[in-house]
Amino acid sequence: MQIAFLLYDGFTALDVVGPYDVLRNLPGCEPVFVAEQVGPVRNTSGSLALIADKGVDEVDEADILVVPGGFGTRVVLDHQPLLAWLRQVHEGTTWTTSVCTGALLLAAAGLLEGEPATTHWLARSTLGALGARPVPERVVQSGKIITAAGVSAGIDMALRVVELTEGPQAAKAIQLDLEYDPQPPFDAGSPEKAPASLVESVTAAFTKAEAEVKAAARIGT
Amino acid sequence: MQIAFLLYDGFTALDVVGPYDVLRNLPGCEPVFVAEQVGPVRNTSGSLALIADKGVDEVDEADILVVPGGFGTRVVLDHQPLLAWLRQVHEGTTWTTSVCTGALLLAAAGLLEGEPATTHWLARSTLGALGARPVPERVVQSGKIITAAGVSAGIDMALRVVELTEGPQAAKAIQLDLEYDPQPPFDAGSPEKAPASLVESVTAAFTKAEAEVKAAARIGT
Repeated sequence: MQIAFLLYDGFTALDVVGPYDVLRNLPGCEPVFVAEQVGPVRNTSGSLALIADKGVDEVDEADILVVPGGFGTRVVLDHQPLLAWLRQVHEGTTWTTSVCTGALLLAAAGLLEGEPATTHWLARSTLGALGARPVPERVVQSGKIITAAGVSAGIDMALRVVELTEGPQAAKAIQLDLEYDPQPPFDAGSPEKAPASLVESVTAAFTKAEAEVKAAARIGT
Repeated sequence: MQIAFLLYDGFTALDVVGPYDVLRNLPGCEPVFVAEQVGPVRNTSGSLALIADKGVDEVDEADILVVPGGFGTRVVLDHQPLLAWLRQVHEGTTWTTSVCTGALLLAAAGLLEGEPATTHWLARSTLGALGARPVPERVVQSGKIITAAGVSAGIDMALRVVELTEGPQAAKAIQLDLEYDPQPPFDAGSPEKAPASLVESVTAAFTKAEAEVKAAARIGT
């Protein structure tokens, strides 16, 4: 069972590593990190690099595809060779998945047209503008496409994929092995739960960072 | 503020990336991945590589030190240059932290002698044998050392560090930005909550994997 994890400049590391450390426990799986160029791929802030062991030209199918998010998505949203690769791999997958703003890439590739999907809570309108039907849930399944909300939601999504693939016992075993018994110190992990002032300041920081990435890549807003 | 994330062959990726994607949001922080050798460092299963941008010889201090776990810890537990480096960096830290079996390294370096600490639930006895006082909690603070339980607990630990460093508002903002509103599909993330049969099978798999790592490195049990 091949599991392809897409990397691109400006991805968010936890988006991809959360699902990775869940899914790599699937029996007989062969995880592979894939990018347009083989070699180190830097995250949003540039201080982390994961190695892409394969180029997209070497991987034309996968049983499970994981597309992480990150501000870098905005730069590749109209990158046709990458979108064509997503469509091609999606054809043969059992599960096509995304985390956070990875859903924007699936939508840009035309895979979410009219479909319910989730993404980072601050990217819901962008997801809608790309043709999907944004749903404010943590994990959303639509046929064989499973999308996760922001960053940390990839862990919950991947456990769902294990459950769907190998059954609940396998998912529970991985959950126990990863000691995934979360105890966040605050109850502020969603815009519905956090105080309005916090939602406002996080929105401002997100909007600024997004604008900076677009300006650097000379993308119109 | 420099934050050093230690890498070594056979680390667990989520142990280090969970805290990384929390802590890199600290204002003015400079995160750096450090290993004995600069370059790609492979995880436990070998299918993931993070780049170490600095060697331990280039980093002799850090405000926050993060030591991840992984089966590879067993191989470096008596690696004196690495343990000496941990002691040296620890001298100047504000916070010295570990995730999962990263606590074994701190203990082997002599930093947890008689101190309360946590680790992966299947490594508690090993942690005790190395001189620490294992506590079955998710995050344990003892002076400036903060240890986290297995793998995913690093996210909770890092949010605690942000709270201690910048206050609760900063921690809540990061939690909201990462949409850390966990919804595990099962309640099986700790040995106290999981059914006994599951605890047994996960223990067997862990023990087998640990023995294989030790055998490959020719380490006595």
